[in-house]
Amino acid sequence: MSRIAYVAGQYLPHRQAAVHIEDRGYQFADGVYEVLAVVGGHLVDEELHLTRLHRSLGELRIPAPMSNSALKVVMREVVRRNGVDRGIIYLQITRGQAPREHAFPKAAKPVFVATSRRTKPPDPKLGRDGIAVITIPDIRWQRCDIKSVSLLPNVLGKQAAREAGAYEAWQVDRNEQVTEGTSTNAWIVTADGAVVTRAADSAILSGVTRLAVLDIMRREGYRLDERPFTVAEAKAAREAFLTSTTADLLPIVRIDGEPVGDGKPGQLSVKLREAYLVHAGVAA
Amino acid sequence: MSRIAYVAGQYLPHRQAAVHIEDRGYQFADGVYEVLAVVGGHLVDEELHLTRLHRSLGELRIPAPMSNSALKVVMREVVRRNGVDRGIIYLQITRGQAPREHAFPKAAKPVFVATSRRTKPPDPKLGRDGIAVITIPDIRWQRCDIKSVSLLPNVLGKQAAREAGAYEAWQVDRNEQVTEGTSTNAWIVTADGAVVTRAADSAILSGVTRLAVLDIMRREGYRLDERPFTVAEAKAAREAFLTSTTADLLPIVRIDGEPVGDGKPGQLSVKLREAYLVHAGVAA
Repeated sequence: MSRIAYVAGQYLPHRQAAVHIEDRGYQFADGVYEVLAVVGGHLVDEELHLTRLHRSLGELRIPAPMSNSALKVVMREVVRRNGVDRGIIYLQITRGQAPREHAFPKAAKPVFVATSRRTKPPDPKLGRDGIAVITIPDIRWQRCDIKSVSLLPNVLGKQAAREAGAYEAWQVDRNEQVTEGTSTNAWIVTADGAVVTRAADSAILSGVTRLAVLDIMRREGYRLDERPFTVAEAKAAREAFLTSTTADLLPIVRIDGEPVGDGKPGQLSVKLREAYLVHAGVAA
Repeated sequence: MSRIAYVAGQYLPHRQAAVHIEDRGYQFADGVYEVLAVVGGHLVDEELHLTRLHRSLGELRIPAPMSNSALKVVMREVVRRNGVDRGIIYLQITRGQAPREHAFPKAAKPVFVATSRRTKPPDPKLGRDGIAVITIPDIRWQRCDIKSVSLLPNVLGKQAAREAGAYEAWQVDRNEQVTEGTSTNAWIVTADGAVVTRAADSAILSGVTRLAVLDIMRREGYRLDERPFTVAEAKAAREAFLTSTTADLLPIVRIDGEPVGDGKPGQLSVKLREAYLVHAGVAA
């Protein structure tokens, strides 16, 4: 089955899927995106993603390219045409195409692109053995609550993680507090068993997996503390983990090379991971 | 004459000039750019632009797509094919096309795009009467010395200026110091006649027009102070002006609605503007 992409009204072979060189996404990072997990053909947490998409568009004053029901039709069609049972769908909406000038163009129409592909489930070894993170300065802009394609610092951070043999880089603000990973939210479990994650301020993205995990925790009566934590606190924590749509929930066993707790995935992390996989429809 | 764009090895009609939806410029703002002025078919300060282009590429570890002499051939060809005597040339180089993943792709080849178009000379009224700026918080990332396409905050800032009836927005850091405009460098002239502009640190782009103006000032014996200045200092200044490739040098006569000096273009600003226009080949 050859891959198909949706580009501004047309379903095109992936190879031919292109945007104009004056698309403002390409010239100005003037656009937003979402990545949804597809499990059994079903879009995991679709409503949460759409709500966030509209919030991002609203903050940038980019009009929605179509109604929510039409968006959903396109998403389903892209998933169907690519024969994706387990995988992801990627949506990108930019302010549109216009002669290059910084201020909003008067006449541009938003350009909506959607792709979908099968993905292997994350390596179960990662969930079983846990992963390593490094810490790096957070050099990003001050509106990381907007899910924009302005991702260059995230790219550089993820590359730094790869080169350090780590799965992710935790970004650290001027107060020595962790904001989030380059594509994941950050969590720790303190010595006395409270789960800590930064509240959704303008320094982090309100992750959909984060929301789903918070929901599980509230339902199951976990002790939760939504507040920033420092790198030192993380290194002294009993457990640590990260969440994202594509990573699910992964236990962290090393931060900057130092073991977290006993260096093995923590008990709460493993339990929450199992509960999240059930929520996502991946596990029974 | 119909417009032609250079896209990754091909000269294409502008309408058909496109990049793949998995170009990292489009999905991650993972690319850099330059804008050069064309005057009499000549590329103004070409070597300074190429030097900066290579610095930006180097900081992001994007390989140059071709040798400098080949880049120059493409630029001249794009200018020629578009029949541009007075106008601009726009270059963009991204890390290339690859399946979406934050870290650097192993196999991607940089994608080089170049366009050129005629532009009207900036309205002489702007140079004669001066322009207005507003001030806004600088919310950008911490590597503004890299001329990347990660320009979303600049877009929002320029739009704020437009809506305030101003030409530009000066971005202000946490110390109340002006960094730069959204697409221009910022300058003031103090009560005792010293010209002040922020030194090229990681908070600003080392503007090519800025360098050319600094050069003129050194040659002609102006008093120069390369240091940050505050908004309060700017509002109390005798003169203010801005520089960029497309704006040349424009006197500023209002900051946040308050007149600068006597509310008319300052003497030094006008003199420097004239000297710069001679340097650029626009005036004799």
